[in-house]
Amino acid sequence: MTDMKSTTKVVVREVGPRDGLQMAKTIMPTAAKLRWIASMVAAGVCEMEVASFVPPAAMPQMADAAELTQTVRSTHQNLFVVALAPNLRGAQNAAAAGAQAIIMPVSASEAHSQANVRRSQAEQVAELGRVVKWARTLGPKALRIEGGISTAFGCSLQGVVPERDVVALAAAIADAGADVIALADTLGYASPSQVRRLVRQVRTEVGIDRFGNLHLHDTLGTALANALAALEEGISGFDAALGGLGGCPFAPGSVGNAATEDLVYMLESEGFSTGIDLDRLIQAREVLRSGLPDEKLHGRVAAAGIPRTYKQLNGLAG
Amino acid sequence: MTDMKSTTKVVVREVGPRDGLQMAKTIMPTAAKLRWIASMVAAGVCEMEVASFVPPAAMPQMADAAELTQTVRSTHQNLFVVALAPNLRGAQNAAAAGAQAIIMPVSASEAHSQANVRRSQAEQVAELGRVVKWARTLGPKALRIEGGISTAFGCSLQGVVPERDVVALAAAIADAGADVIALADTLGYASPSQVRRLVRQVRTEVGIDRFGNLHLHDTLGTALANALAALEEGISGFDAALGGLGGCPFAPGSVGNAATEDLVYMLESEGFSTGIDLDRLIQAREVLRSGLPDEKLHGRVAAAGIPRTYKQLNGLAG
Repeated sequence: MTDMKSTTKVVVREVGPRDGLQMAKTIMPTAAKLRWIASMVAAGVCEMEVASFVPPAAMPQMADAAELTQTVRSTHQNLFVVALAPNLRGAQNAAAAGAQAIIMPVSASEAHSQANVRRSQAEQVAELGRVVKWARTLGPKALRIEGGISTAFGCSLQGVVPERDVVALAAAIADAGADVIALADTLGYASPSQVRRLVRQVRTEVGIDRFGNLHLHDTLGTALANALAALEEGISGFDAALGGLGGCPFAPGSVGNAATEDLVYMLESEGFSTGIDLDRLIQAREVLRSGLPDEKLHGRVAAAGIPRTYKQLNGLAG
Repeated sequence: MTDMKSTTKVVVREVGPRDGLQMAKTIMPTAAKLRWIASMVAAGVCEMEVASFVPPAAMPQMADAAELTQTVRSTHQNLFVVALAPNLRGAQNAAAAGAQAIIMPVSASEAHSQANVRRSQAEQVAELGRVVKWARTLGPKALRIEGGISTAFGCSLQGVVPERDVVALAAAIADAGADVIALADTLGYASPSQVRRLVRQVRTEVGIDRFGNLHLHDTLGTALANALAALEEGISGFDAALGGLGGCPFAPGSVGNAATEDLVYMLESEGFSTGIDLDRLIQAREVLRSGLPDEKLHGRVAAAGIPRTYKQLNGLAG
């Protein structure tokens, strides 16, 4: 293994407005969401999951998904706008609102699939096939469809998820025509060598060009170690949520996403380029806090402050 | 880089009673310390830094160092008992109390050296030489002397610490006769590739047999990622403190050590053997909390609970 190259770009996709808010105790007003999103874009965030297109009754936090997506898309021209949709109807609504990519969750665990989308895994793969088929009618590159494998590294309901099941599911999602296949550690149970093994196998199965972001949670404190293992395997895209917000309402025990600010700190310290200004990203926490005052924010870099050695190392090594 | 071997032993040295307590707001009574130490030994901890032999006026938390060390040594026959001492007098007191190893801090940063031990780095290396010379009079293997390089990965006072300075200091400590040379990320500023570079260079300089534990802090959330990088370089000993307690009173901005329970969780999940029962280790937090009720304990595994997939993976991989 060699040291990281200092010029490699890594994309950090902010998923706070979607994954981060779906567990929040209070509903964040649309205007507050828009201020928060704007503050993160100002910090250099260039990809964002902005909403989940699910029935409002199931997730009141996302009742403004269409309005929000529309406004974000028209306000932030350089932001790549992603929305989650569990089915064809959600995908159509998201696309109508201006989403440029749809991430569609498919659970590796059958128990989580039933809890999360009320369908079997096979039914959800078939639904993803319908979404792809419809998306192609919009034009060859009009809408990117991502298949996100939830509970890829273990499930609180099922327990261990065998790696061969995840690889088989990745193949099925690829066969269904998804543009990219992403792995999600919904519970935060992944360990670094498990990340390595599964990334290698899934990448071999679907091809490196169709391998999507790695979605990590920090339930057990291992999110950054897992990200490091993934970087060593050549992964160059991660999901993260500012303040480590988040969790899956249908995965008991799941807690926050990898904190965007801590991930950016580690990536930049390792010499990767994220395009994100860490100072301004930390300021965006205040915008989040003002719009969602009852939620506890995580994140070590914000608590300790950016150290004076940040990004000062490369010239003084050796 | 290959996956980790499932049979490799890794020693986790608990440093909570020393490093963990020195920043605590209230003084933990000796009897409470002894109950806490016993609960960690019961969980399988086999090496521990139990006290710091410094003037009580400088660190009231450590006023019971001699009494505590004596009792621990006579109570826990299978525990390897380590004490910190900044000078010859402290080392002699620690040895008289029964410590089997002395860790003597030498700062890589001159500013931290003055703040921490009120001596220049060169004076502290000379003092370490005196400690070694005296220790040898006790018998060839009677007392192990460890040189711990503080602020090896950066300093809040000095900023960046050039790697060549750390390597030169490691060589000087080796020349002074220390049995092992250890690297400490006192501030928690290390990044994974910095860990790799410095471990390689120092190991080349002093030899693999004299390379001591890696001492990590989690100020910026990177402790486990740094531990992973060190594991990949073959490091098989780490310091950690239960509940992520700790910090250096003379290093502004420093916060807790790597949390023992989170480190053990990652190590065991990676297939390493620590000899520590994670369930019982988490129970030891309650013993700590009862003796030090005002201190905030960190640690993600204790907050989330041990996942049902813990150590279940190896049989189901592939």
